[in-house]
Formats: sequence, C-alpha cells, structure tokens
Amino acid sequence: MATVVKNGTIVTADLTYKADLKIDGGKIVEIGPDLAGDETLDATGCYVMPGGIDPHVHLEMPFMGTYSADDFDSGTRAALAGGTTMVVDFCLPDPGQSMLDALKRWDNKATRAHCDYSFHMAVTWWSEQVFNEMQTVVQEKGINTFKHFMAYKGSLMVNDDEMFASFSRCAELGALPLVHAENGDVVAAMQQKLMDEGNNGPEAHAYSRPASVEGEATNRAIIIADMAGVPLYVVHTSCEQAHEAIRRARQNGMRVYGEPLIQHLTLDESEYFDKDWDHSARRVMSPPFRNKQHQDSLWAGLASGSLQCVATDHCAFTTDQKRYGVGDFRKIPNGTGGLEDRLPMLWTYGVATGRITMNEFVAVTSTNIAKILNLYPRKGAILVGADADLVVLDPKKSKTISAKTQQSAIDYNVFEGKQVTGLPRYTLSRGVVVVEEGTIRSREGHGQFVAREPYPAVSKALSTWKDLTAPRKVERTGIPASGV
Amino acid sequence: MATVVKNGTIVTADLTYKADLKIDGGKIVEIGPDLAGDETLDATGCYVMPGGIDPHVHLEMPFMGTYSADDFDSGTRAALAGGTTMVVDFCLPDPGQSMLDALKRWDNKATRAHCDYSFHMAVTWWSEQVFNEMQTVVQEKGINTFKHFMAYKGSLMVNDDEMFASFSRCAELGALPLVHAENGDVVAAMQQKLMDEGNNGPEAHAYSRPASVEGEATNRAIIIADMAGVPLYVVHTSCEQAHEAIRRARQNGMRVYGEPLIQHLTLDESEYFDKDWDHSARRVMSPPFRNKQHQDSLWAGLASGSLQCVATDHCAFTTDQKRYGVGDFRKIPNGTGGLEDRLPMLWTYGVATGRITMNEFVAVTSTNIAKILNLYPRKGAILVGADADLVVLDPKKSKTISAKTQQSAIDYNVFEGKQVTGLPRYTLSRGVVVVEEGTIRSREGHGQFVAREPYPAVSKALSTWKDLTAPRKVERTGIPASGV
Amino acid sequence: MATVVKNGTIVTADLTYKADLKIDGGKIVEIGPDLAGDETLDATGCYVMPGGIDPHVHLEMPFMGTYSADDFDSGTRAALAGGTTMVVDFCLPDPGQSMLDALKRWDNKATRAHCDYSFHMAVTWWSEQVFNEMQTVVQEKGINTFKHFMAYKGSLMVNDDEMFASFSRCAELGALPLVHAENGDVVAAMQQKLMDEGNNGPEAHAYSRPASVEGEATNRAIIIADMAGVPLYVVHTSCEQAHEAIRRARQNGMRVYGEPLIQHLTLDESEYFDKDWDHSARRVMSPPFRNKQHQDSLWAGLASGSLQCVATDHCAFTTDQKRYGVGDFRKIPNGTGGLEDRLPMLWTYGVATGRITMNEFVAVTSTNIAKILNLYPRKGAILVGADADLVVLDPKKSKTISAKTQQSAIDYNVFEGKQVTGLPRYTLSRGVVVVEEGTIRSREGHGQFVAREPYPAVSKALSTWKDLTAPRKVERTGIPASGV
Amino acid sequence: MATVVKNGTIVTADLTYKADLKIDGGKIVEIGPDLAGDETLDATGCYVMPGGIDPHVHLEMPFMGTYSADDFDSGTRAALAGGTTMVVDFCLPDPGQSMLDALKRWDNKATRAHCDYSFHMAVTWWSEQVFNEMQTVVQEKGINTFKHFMAYKGSLMVNDDEMFASFSRCAELGALPLVHAENGDVVAAMQQKLMDEGNNGPEAHAYSRPASVEGEATNRAIIIADMAGVPLYVVHTSCEQAHEAIRRARQNGMRVYGEPLIQHLTLDESEYFDKDWDHSARRVMSPPFRNKQHQDSLWAGLASGSLQCVATDHCAFTTDQKRYGVGDFRKIPNGTGGLEDRLPMLWTYGVATGRITMNEFVAVTSTNIAKILNLYPRKGAILVGADADLVVLDPKKSKTISAKTQQSAIDYNVFEGKQVTGLPRYTLSRGVVVVEEGTIRSREGHGQFVAREPYPAVSKALSTWKDLTAPRKVERTGIPASGV
Repeated sequence: MATVVKNGTIVTADLTYKADLKIDGGKIVEIGPDLAGDETLDATGCYVMPGGIDPHVHLEMPFMGTYSADDFDSGTRAALAGGTTMVVDFCLPDPGQSMLDALKRWDNKATRAHCDYSFHMAVTWWSEQVFNEMQTVVQEKGINTFKHFMAYKGSLMVNDDEMFASFSRCAELGALPLVHAENGDVVAAMQQKLMDEGNNGPEAHAYSRPASVEGEATNRAIIIADMAGVPLYVVHTSCEQAHEAIRRARQNGMRVYGEPLIQHLTLDESEYFDKDWDHSARRVMSPPFRNKQHQDSLWAGLASGSLQCVATDHCAFTTDQKRYGVGDFRKIPNGTGGLEDRLPMLWTYGVATGRITMNEFVAVTSTNIAKILNLYPRKGAILVGADADLVVLDPKKSKTISAKTQQSAIDYNVFEGKQVTGLPRYTLSRGVVVVEEGTIRSREGHGQFVAREPYPAVSKALSTWKDLTAPRKVERTGIPASGV
Repeated sequence: MATVVKNGTIVTADLTYKADLKIDGGKIVEIGPDLAGDETLDATGCYVMPGGIDPHVHLEMPFMGTYSADDFDSGTRAALAGGTTMVVDFCLPDPGQSMLDALKRWDNKATRAHCDYSFHMAVTWWSEQVFNEMQTVVQEKGINTFKHFMAYKGSLMVNDDEMFASFSRCAELGALPLVHAENGDVVAAMQQKLMDEGNNGPEAHAYSRPASVEGEATNRAIIIADMAGVPLYVVHTSCEQAHEAIRRARQNGMRVYGEPLIQHLTLDESEYFDKDWDHSARRVMSPPFRNKQHQDSLWAGLASGSLQCVATDHCAFTTDQKRYGVGDFRKIPNGTGGLEDRLPMLWTYGVATGRITMNEFVAVTSTNIAKILNLYPRKGAILVGADADLVVLDPKKSKTISAKTQQSAIDYNVFEGKQVTGLPRYTLSRGVVVVEEGTIRSREGHGQFVAREPYPAVSKALSTWKDLTAPRKVERTGIPASGV
Repeated sequence: MATVVKNGTIVTADLTYKADLKIDGGKIVEIGPDLAGDETLDATGCYVMPGGIDPHVHLEMPFMGTYSADDFDSGTRAALAGGTTMVVDFCLPDPGQSMLDALKRWDNKATRAHCDYSFHMAVTWWSEQVFNEMQTVVQEKGINTFKHFMAYKGSLMVNDDEMFASFSRCAELGALPLVHAENGDVVAAMQQKLMDEGNNGPEAHAYSRPASVEGEATNRAIIIADMAGVPLYVVHTSCEQAHEAIRRARQNGMRVYGEPLIQHLTLDESEYFDKDWDHSARRVMSPPFRNKQHQDSLWAGLASGSLQCVATDHCAFTTDQKRYGVGDFRKIPNGTGGLEDRLPMLWTYGVATGRITMNEFVAVTSTNIAKILNLYPRKGAILVGADADLVVLDPKKSKTISAKTQQSAIDYNVFEGKQVTGLPRYTLSRGVVVVEEGTIRSREGHGQFVAREPYPAVSKALSTWKDLTAPRKVERTGIPASGV
Repeated sequence: MATVVKNGTIVTADLTYKADLKIDGGKIVEIGPDLAGDETLDATGCYVMPGGIDPHVHLEMPFMGTYSADDFDSGTRAALAGGTTMVVDFCLPDPGQSMLDALKRWDNKATRAHCDYSFHMAVTWWSEQVFNEMQTVVQEKGINTFKHFMAYKGSLMVNDDEMFASFSRCAELGALPLVHAENGDVVAAMQQKLMDEGNNGPEAHAYSRPASVEGEATNRAIIIADMAGVPLYVVHTSCEQAHEAIRRARQNGMRVYGEPLIQHLTLDESEYFDKDWDHSARRVMSPPFRNKQHQDSLWAGLASGSLQCVATDHCAFTTDQKRYGVGDFRKIPNGTGGLEDRLPMLWTYGVATGRITMNEFVAVTSTNIAKILNLYPRKGAILVGADADLVVLDPKKSKTISAKTQQSAIDYNVFEGKQVTGLPRYTLSRGVVVVEEGTIRSREGHGQFVAREPYPAVSKALSTWKDLTAPRKVERTGIPASGV
C-alpha cells in the first residue's frame, strides 16, 4: 500500500527540486519524477519537507502536585497540526530518584503520543548511582542526551562540580550534555529582593532573570564542557549574551550548539508590562522574552549557523494554573505553548521576510536537530530509507492564530492574533496522513519511541583532538625530597 | 556500461554510511547495497566521497610576458591525482579589455583540461561596457561570480566606487562578488618603504602585507557588499582579522563566505625567514603565510562554519620564475602550488587530528563550494543524478610529499617532506576512472566547462530582506521653498 | 590685581576638594584655604572646574560662496556662555592651496575671538609642497594636528595612499593625525542612488551614511595609522561600529582616540523623520544622529575611557542656508550648533544621571582634550601656573534651552526645549570674568592663539615601540642570480 | 626640618616637568623652582615620582601551620628597596572567625612595617555576623575593600549566593568588592583528575587552572557585581579571557577594574616545564603564568586603560616550603615574590620599550591604585599636601636581579638574572629617606596604617544610575484572585 506525494517541490536543508515521493511501510522508498502509488497526495504548489522535530517539550510535566496542561495526546496533536512530526521530551527524576524509575513513568505517559518521540534524561542530582545509571540510559535505553539545570535552585539545579562530573561522564559515554543556562543563585537572590521591594507581578519574573544572568551561565557551562572534553547543547538561547558566549566558544574550536525558541524570536519583553495580569503571566517562561536587539542576534545566528535549532520549550499551563502566582511571581508556573505555531511563525517571520532561506528553515526546524541528536537520516531527511515524516507546506495558505482553534488544551495562545502564512496541506507521520487541510486524522498511540545512538561524529572528533592535546607530564630526574 | 563502486563507506557533508554506488553515463544512477555493474571498483576499507572542487586556481595565468607554470594540462592532472575533480579558474581581462574577448582566451586554454572546470570573471576596470557585459557573462556564459582585486595597485586593483558599482550590478544579476582583500594602497606604500630601507628579500613580501591590511580590506568589502545588498565571497582568508570581520558580518545577518587556503592552514611565516632565498621566494604568495594563532582561527572557522571552503589559489611558478624577484621582492611572482596536496594535507592535519570530522572535510573541500557557486547537487553530492565526480579515499594509504613525484610542472613543492595519510585509491571524473592507485589514467580534453546559474536561494532571500528594509521616504507637506 | 574664587569645591579630572583659588596675571597663582585678593568671586555651592575646551568647531567656515553663520565673535560668545573657554577650529586649505596661505585667512578671522583658540590644519590634497609645509606648520605655526577627510568626495576627501603619506609625515614630525571617518565613495554612491529613487529629503542624508560606513572608515584609518606608526584621533565618533574599531585598536596596543559629540550622545535619528522639513534639515550633520544603542555605546566609552573627548563640531547654518537643500538633501549644509550647550547637556544627561562622575565630566570636556592636543597643563588644569580658564558651575542653576536666548547667530537650536541643570555662575578666560550669571561680559579680540608643541609622550613612546619591532632584514648568503 | 628634592624631573600620572620639591612634616609642602631646605637630595638626571603602591601582598600569611616567608619586616624592606612605599595586605578570617578578631591579628603583625600599609578584608564565609561586621570594618576600621575567593574550594572559597549577598552589602556600605577569579569547582576537579593520571608535578598546577577557568570566574563575578549594583576589582588578571570579560563589562557601562601582576606581564608558562622541579615549583602561583599572547593582552590593557593597576601578589615561600608539594602539586604553596622587582621590571619592559609612557607607569604602579582604593591624593600624588612617599628613579641605574642581593627572606627570585634599568636613587616614606643608592635606611615600625573612606565618586555615580534604572512595578487593577 504505497502513497505518492505528487507534483510538489521537495525542500531539504540542502536542496530545492521538483520530484514526487513514494512511501511504503512508513518509509520513503523512491524519489523521482512521475511516481505512482495506491494513494496520491497532491502537492501542487506546495513544498514537501521533512516534518518538524521539536527538541524541547515538556508534556504532562509534574508540577506542584499537578501537571502541565498539554499531555502526550493534546501536545502531539498540536505538533502535527503545525507540521511537527517528532518531539523530544525531558525525563525528570526527582532528586534522589533513579533515572530508570523516572523513565518508566515517562514511557508510560508517552503511550498516548500521536507522533514519534524521544527523551532527554535530566541529571537533577549526583551520586555513584547516577554515574552508573547514565551508562544504562545510554547503552540500553536509547537516550544519548543529558539535561542539566543551572537554575531552579532548591529543586532541579546542579552545581558546577556536579556538572563537571556529569559532563565528564557524558564524554566517556559519547553522550551530549544539555544545559538550561541561568545563574540560579543570582536569580533566587534577585527574586527575593524584588519580592522584598513589593515587585510581585509577572514583570518581576523578567527583572529577576536578565540577559546577563543567562549569558553568564552559558559561558560557564561552555567552559566546564570544554574542560570535560565534551560538546554542549544550550537550550532556549534567548539573548545576545548567551549567543556571544556560544560564538566565542565555537571560534575557539569548541563544539557548542544553541537553540533559540520561536517565542524569543518573535515576542518581546513588552508582554510583561501589559496592564492585564493574566496576559503577562501567561507569557512567563524562563528565560523571559527579550527585546529587538536580542531577536536580531538570534535571527542572525540562524542564518549564519552559530545557532542551529528552533524549539518551543512547549510547557503549557492554563490561566488557572498561572494564577497560582498571583501575589508572588515566583509561583507562576514557567512555560508557554508553541508546538502548533513554531513552523508557521518561523516561515512567516523568517522565510517570507528573507531572513532565512527555505533550506535554512528545514535545517533549523528539523535536519540540524536530527543530526545533533544523532537521529539523522532516519528523521530530518528526505532520502530513500528515511522515515516518511513529512510536511506538505502550502506557502499560500494562511490563518490568524487563535486559542479558539488550536489543538493545545489551554485557554489562550501567546501568538494570539498573529497572521501567519505557510501551513500544512498534509502532515505525514511514518507515511500516515495525520493532518489534512487542518483536520487531524491521527490516533493516540500511533507515536513510537525513537532510540538514539551515542558517539556521533562530532563527539568522536572532539575526543581525538582532546587526546592529542591532553596535558603531558614533564619527565624529571632529581626531584627533591618532600618538605613535609 | 555501468561502473559500481563496491564495499565502501560513503561519506558526504551530511552522512556516513555503507553502500555501493552505481554509475552510468557519467552520473550516479543508484546507491544501495549489493549493486552490480560491468566494471567494479573495490572500495573496501575506503571512504567514497564527492571529488574535491577547488574554487580558486590560476592555470597558465599570463604574467610579465610569460605564464604561470601549470596549465590546464598539468594543473588538472595534479588536481585529479589529489582527489580534486573540478577547478574554477579566473578569467582576467586586461584593463580596458572586453570580458567576452578575455573569455575566449580562457576557453581556449581550458580545452586541455583533464577534469571539469568553470570560471570566475574578474572585474579589473569599470565602464558602461563592463556593466553591460556582466549581464552577458551571467546570462549567456554560465558565470555567476565576479572577482575584484583590492590589491595589485596599478594593474588589477579596483577602487571602492568601482566595487560598489560592480557589487550593485551583481545584486541585480543574481551574481556573487568575490574579493581579494588587501589594501592595495597601503601595500604599495609599504613595499616602497621597505625597498627604500634595503629590505628587498622575500621576507619583505610578508612585512608589506600584514594581517591588519587584509583585515581592513575584508571589512571594507563586506560593508560595500552590505550597502549594495549582495552576498560576498572572500578568497584566501588567511588571518584572524579577516576572519573576525567575516564573523562580525555574519552575526549582523550579512551573507559572507570565507575561503582559507590549505597553505595558510598548515604553513607559517617562518618560511620567509629561511636562509635560503629560493626557499623563501617559492613561498611568496598573497596573502603571505601567518602564524599559529591565525591558523587556529582558520581551523576553528572550518569547524564552526564561519569559514566555508578550503582552496589552494594554485598558481605555480618555477624557481627560475621566482628569481625574477632577486633584489626586489616586488618582482617575485606571487603564487604557490597545492592542487595535488589540498585533500591529503587537510585530511592529515584536520580529520586525523580530530579538528574536523570527515563530513566537514567533504563540506569544505567540495559540497559547500558547490552550493555557494550554485553547482550543487550536480557537483559536490553523492545523490542519484549527480555527476560521478568521486574520490575513493583510502585512509590507510600514506606518502611523503615530494616535488619529485608530483604532477605539477614546477621543480619544488611547498609541502615537501610532509608525511600525509588519506590518499585516493581511485579518482573518478564523470564516471571515468582517471586516477588509480597513484597512476593517472586521464586524458587531455576530457574536462568540460560547467555553466552555473545565477540567483541561488541565499541571494534571493537577501534581496527580499533588503527590499523589506529599504529606505523609505518621509512624506511631507509644506516643504519650504529652496534657499538657492 | 588678584582675583579670588572663594568657597567653592574644586573639581578636576582627578580630584574633588574644597579650596579657594587665587588668580593673577591671567594665571592661577595659589590654591588653598582662606585666600584673599582684590576681587572676590563667590563660588559657594558651586564647582570650580577647568573651562571647557571644544576640540572641534568650524566658525565662519567657507561654504558655497558664503560662510557658516557663527563666526569667531558669536561662536566664542556661545562657547563662554556655556562654560567653554577654548575652541579649536580647522584651517581648511582649498585643494591646491598652500597651508600657509590658508592659515593667514584663519588667523585673520580669529582676531574677533572672545576666548582662546587654536587650529588644526587640514590635509585636503597631497604634494611635495604639502609635505614640506607640514613641517613649517608644526615647527613654526604651533599646530601639531592634521585633519583628514575620508568623506566629501570631490572636495575635501583624501585617498588611502595620501593618508598613508600624510600619517607617515605626522609620525616624523611628532604630530597627530585626525580623521573624519566615513567612506566617501560609498556615501557618494548611496546619495546618488537615493536621489535616483526620489529620496531627496533630509532623512536620505541619514540613509546615505549609516553607521557601518563610519565604522569601515574608522577601521581603515586606524590600520593606516598603525602602519605609519602614529597615534590617531577620530573626530565625531557617533556609533558602536566606529567605537568598536577604536576599542579593538586600543586592545591591540594602538594609540587611538575617539571623540563623541554631545549631539550624538543625546539626540537620535528620529529627528530626521520629523514631518517638518526644516526641523529635519536643521539636524543634518555628518555623521547623522544614531539610535539609543549607539548612544549607550558612546556613554560607556566615556566612562570606561575608550572614548576620551566630547566635542560639538559646531558649524551653524541658518534655516535659510539649510534650505539650499530643498529638493536635494546633498545640498543641505552639514552642521549644527552646540557650543553653548555642550557642558550643560553633558552635565544633565551624564553627571546628574550617574553615567559619569564629575571628574570624568572635567576629563572629557577639558583635561583629556588638553592632554591629547598637548596643551596640558596650561589649559585643562587647576594647578598653580595654569591659565585661569575656569567655569564656576552651579549645579542647582537650570534653564530650558531656547534659540531665543542663545548667543549663536542662528534662528534655532537642536536642543530646543531641553531642560538642563548645571550652568555657569561665572566663566573666566585667563582670569577675566567673561560670563556672570548668564550675562556676557567678554570682548571681541580678547581671545589669543594657543600654540601647541609636537612630540607628546604618547607619540614618543609609540615611536620607540615601532622602532623596536620594525621589520628586520634576513641576512642571507648565496642569493641566486636574478631570473630576469 | 625641611627636605628638598632638587634638580629632578617630576613625573606624575598626568605630567612631566622640572621642579624641586620641598617636604616638611612628612608631607609635600611646596613644588617649584629653586627651593631650599635643611636637607637636600640631589635628583639630577632622575625622575621624581609618587612611591609605588602595591595593592596586593600577603606578608606573614598563615599557611599549613606556618607562614609565608616574608613578614612585614622583610616584605616592606623589599618594597622600599624597589621604590614601593605602601602595601595593602589581606586580612583573612578563618571560616567562622570574626572579622574583627582576625583584624587584631593583622594589626599586630603589621607593627613591624617599614612603610605605610592598609588592609583589604576577606569574606571567607557568610552569616549575619559577617553582614554586621562588614559595617564596622568600613565605618570604624578604615577598610573599604572586601576580598572574595572564587577558588580554593574547601577553605577560602565562597559561592555565588554568598558573593551576591556580600557584594550587595558592599553596595550599601560604599565599599568595593575584590575577587580572586578562578572557578574553584573546576580547578578542584581538574586537580583530582591530573593526580589520578599521575600528573603530580608543578606543571600540573598550570594544567589545572587554564585561562578559560579564570575568564569564566571573572565574567561571573562581573555579572554578580552588576546585579548587586557595585563596582568590582579583579585581582591578578592574568589572561586575555579575563581581560576580555573586563573590557566587555566596561563597554556595557559597568565599573570594573583589573590588576595584572608584574609576573604575568613578564614571565611565561614555560617556567613550569623546566626540568628542575624546584625551578618550576618556585613559580607556582594562582593564576599560573600564561603565554605571550596573554602578555600582549595585558600590556595593551595598561596602555589603553582597560586594566588599571600592576601588583605583585607577593607571597613568598622558601624552597623548603615549596617542597611540601613534592609528589602532589596541590600541596605546593601558592605564591611568588616580586615586591622589590615590580617597578624596575615594569620600567625595563614597559617604559624603556615604549609600550607605556612614564606617566602611565606612575598611574599603574601608584596613582590609579590610590584612586581606586580611595587614598588619593594622600598617596599616589605629587601635590602640595600629599604624603611625601616618593621614589627618585634614576633611569640610567641598572642591575641584574639576584636572590643574593634581595631584601626578601627567601632563597631565590623568580626574576633571577633579569637585567633591569631604572632603579631608585632615593626612596622616601613620609619624607624620610628610607633607601639611598641601594642601601636600606628604614626602621621597623616606621610604617603606619592608612585608613580609607568608603563611597568614592565612582560608587556614588553607579548608585545614582542603578537607582534611576531600577525595576519599576507595573501598576495593575483587576488582578485576578490567586489560583491556589
């Protein structure tokens, strides 16, 4: 039972060309002119692209006794509706908890997924057990990425020595460390200071975590990774300071990746100064939105390659949940939606304006992510043998973003009212048409876990170089006797 | 008559995987396991890669009444011997000469080529004729790149207003300007000053064109390109100052490319301080070799993507020709060889050390070049339909570089004595085995001109952005009468 | 006949302390407690500072057959009214004209000055005569600074080779080159392009000379100065790009100075988008005003010491004169006023906000300028023996800037409506009270020419270093015979 | 009983001029021509400068049950012998110890001082007691600077939240925080790793604290200071990374100072690779010596003003003490001498080469330090009323540095064998000739404690700016009820 996508223009990170695609068994089996199959999808006037991969989502994330509002059902529906065909969630062990125990819980939640998914594992505490379990996670569980929180003091945050230990372990295992880079000590102190001064509204969230605090932590994580001899992936890079640290590292030959969010690319800090508390609180996420200067920096990074991926950090909370923080901004749950909007927003503000090319669009929403996470070319590619995770994007199709029509379970949308062009005519997940002209045709549980191998080429090259340049002992004779 | 490359590991800019390749009619027709054909090339233990493309060579270049020593015969033989399957030469009209007339001369020289080739056109003077001919060159002659010399005052050098005019014309035509970036005025003044002080040896060549002078011109060319609204390609980027200017531009959203040479990556300025005049003079090229700090900058640029291509600027002169400059370093012909050595040197000093991955090796020697010059995927790709320009690289094969065994017509080699590993088992040009285990089997005239289309995706995107952000007139009423 | 300034707080670039000052013969003769003299000026509640020095003014500047509206009479009255007690004007030879002839004309104009003055000499063309006259200018005419215009193509502009020659000559003579840094070729081309597109209003002036064009020229001038082995002073540094070039140079050990104008520190580009043509045209100067990001850069430079001086480039044209450019922005005379407003504006926006200290205020308005121009401590100091050029600044005194009450001869003020605090209670020129509580008591012709010596300490140190690190010839034997 | 320094050339941070100096009561009482007094010191051919101030010494520092070898006797003798007339030592409370108790111990040690001295107080732990005592220290003990160690994990190191708390307290008190900037967590982990690998020699000390680790901590301290709203002083800035962080901060308007050591300016890392264990161990200090590139960065910083002070971190250990670390480099006591050599080394490598001017020499060895520590103009100035702490430097006098002839109590000198020119003919401490032509004539106990006031001008200005730009609460009506 073969499906053919006909008459479209294939757009990859590399290439733009006219061809048909034949799909069978969930995979691309042929690319070329004049293909025929059992089912035909008309892509006339459309771009046929690798489906989006969102490397950064939190679905049904445990939080203060409840959960973030989008679970693997609504969350992955939102993804597909927006042309994203794979998500990577974060398995978050409680401090003291076994990674393997935590993973069971995540495995269980993800059984509802409509699209394929993978996990990052978080290192939320440190011990010999953690050290040992990391090996199991990499070698048996198909997870080659470990997340570290430099913020959220008192809960998820790890210290520099823990990061060094964990990063060193990643180096041994061929795994990639990820960091949430904000100085948690400074943020906590600033939060307290602001509360003491009566600044308890959502704008204080932004005041408490300025760009410099993110830049500092980014730089610190980079140095630690360099000392540990491992590449580094910085999540939700939101500002020039962090981006500058990344560029500097890359120019020193380090292997560092940066991931702006679609929110930071298109929304700014003025959102926090809205007179409507709900409006501002709904936009509370970490890092907070910045200003145009930072946005320009991020856009340039995508075009120049110093930033590689666009994500969402999708972690949706309802207005009711946000209101936990009335009177104390520290209690506003951190997170916004975005899964359904990432591709259309980036197309509209990026491709349609000429800031990035279509090929760069594919690279930053899919292909680069697949490569960095060592999923390529199973995902992120239009090649024979690749999974048929595809979006058939109609560049003429447009809509106004609205919470009323979204898949997400929450009651608002941070992009409400934005006019976007470039929407899926079809989204395919492993060959199955899961979205057609705005209608979801997927089913819960269709999504499968995607295991990822360690030791991508960049890790191996870095290890070679680090070995070559490792400290060498000076051979001496006649060393004096110890003075003690 | 199909050829199959069997049992190799295919390495592209993206991917490393085991597969066989089938070639027919000069093109790749199938990629997959267990292929069979009329002829089989055994690639066991080897990497099968897109053949190298050298974007920067000068073969049989007119010079002081004679020519550079390698012509399209020996030069392209050297290329193939080193795994390079395409070269791009520069058509250099004399000041006042028609581009079309000059092109005839280059077409004629290139009939001897053993591998495919293309041309850049140089803008060596400016006039309405030049303005008009640029359109013909782009639209009828298959040339979409125009070279500008900011050095060589009195001969090839163009001024800022000429560059602005030519770059603007490139923007209109969808062509890409290239620059040789050194401040020609300052170089000429420094040369005179050094001669006046009795510094007439080859080391004075290096003194007269320090890194700052290259950095200055690079920055200037970038600003002019930005004002003209066109991408820019900087040839032979040799130093941190030029690289910094390129990085800064890219971080401001500009589309700028940089091309280090294999010589600058691996040789340093100490060569000019050799007590043997011939030794130093043979290394005279512009820009001159720099030091380790600059080399580190260039290597990091290749790994991070701020520099995209590795070239040679192959322009070989015999020792006798070099001796024109005894007593006056300004008369030493500028140029070195490198075509045969680019890939092995980069593999040895880059891939084997872990500074870059194999995929990055392919990117910077072939794929990126093909993309930037708008040749991709005809060249630079291992895809069905691409030209079968291939190198089957044996990572165990090694040799010591020596003028005695080289294809180049000159009597020395600037890499003499370097031990390299990673050499072609086979080189194929459009499916024809032209090198086999070190033996050249190609023929003169096999090479064909490759025409290149204007308006690559990056140019179009930049034009869209420039239009969107173009100066807007302020609409005023009540403008006063002129004071004059 | 001694004058005593009593009960004030002396503020210098170094120090803040309570003391009285005694003045006799135009000079400070004593500093200490409880001084008495024939005349007493009460400085209670005031800061007693070195009078401002404006290193950059154009009074009665020839222009299109007429002159800039403020001459040495009204211009220096404006200076004194604002606490500035010395100005440095530019002697501008016509291309082809002798520097010495031009100087006679400037000497003649300056006889009307109310305050002391000096001249910079402009190098507007190049020849052996210019080369020779530079020596006379330095050694006999008391001028140790030479201005070079990189813009104003077709009139004042000099090319890179001329700059290199002139800068080298400055190095020999112990003189300091100054540059107006904008790429004149690019500006001219942009101007033509804008006119061709119908952009003929004053906003097109800003469009035609963006920050990048200033940054480019600044960087170029710096490299040329470094090659010539001479310090460099960049006038009217208006943007981050130029400032960045200066910082980079300084961090490479170069001796480079930058001079923001009070206009660029406090006014922005929105002025050019005013619907009133006159409003915008009155603000036309080169470089044009920039935005807040550039302003922040300049302010930080003043605090950190990477920028040293605040000037005005006072070159006032009446509205009628500005209207020469109706229909063609290129004909709007370039220049604004500012002499009366520099100190109060800088105090209000700098000292009162805490961006700079009072001591830094004195440094950038007076002391640093005196040091760089080699006038210190005759000017710019409160030391025994220094000229009694003083401003007794009352930090409580305030006013609203208005053309109605200004000394300048023009009919508007670019700072119109700004509320400033920190105004002179007294201004003294060589001990004479020339301003008292807003009333001018000076007389035409009181001002004297101040001669300046070459070879300040920084120049000598740089020469020592350049000699130490100069290119050294490689001594070789067995040099082959020339190939020619 | 007046002393006159006759016939010399006075050199200050500002000025170079011929004048005599009259001293009475320990202070400068007159500056001018032809002065006479009871005692005359002939300064013919000499430069008369403010005596050096060393802002960073550790005399008789407690260490592993013993003490650093130079105490306030030998240490201050060494200072005077080299033209340094004041030192600032660090009072180091044990963790848990009262600052006031610790101070008594330091007061007691310092009674032996031959020259004036002051103290920095170290914050080695945090508590309400520390918070309270800081006020006493500032307001009653004449100490306005607090040192924080980011390295030495397990003993002196403080964490980010402690730094933020202490820096905030400094802001309130008008005090200046100092930091030893190295990432202590990373250093400790690297040390362990190196030991585990058998790298136990002194070179491993350098391996364990690379420049990146210092740069990281410098950047972090700067961000914390900025958040706390206080200036920052970074001690022993040894590398480009740290310097870059400082420059970046200054360019963002922050008030940050950097202090290179004379050792880092003139010695390099090759010292650690010496085959003689003792040789290498004697050079062990933190940060370790770097390479030429870093040295160039530091020199440029002194000339450009991005670095302000040159210190020694004099903390001398005998070879026997150094040998505590045989077999374990972590036990080699950290520290070198330098007090006697700072000025001659800086003169020889800085002034004599032209890298800095004489005035800059005075600035970085004395005047800038006095200003930053709020001692100016009592110290660091040649002004009437200033303490007569002077060095009469003979630019022709030279010597070869040797442990054999030094004042320091240790048995070697890290500058052994260096030929220096520019030595004191006389050193005066508060008017007393304490060194004459190489002979020490001072006495134990002559030195006095110098109290320093808080709230220098820069602190006040920064506070004003921070208040002006402080977070403002958004006033909202209709805030919803809390969700909890």
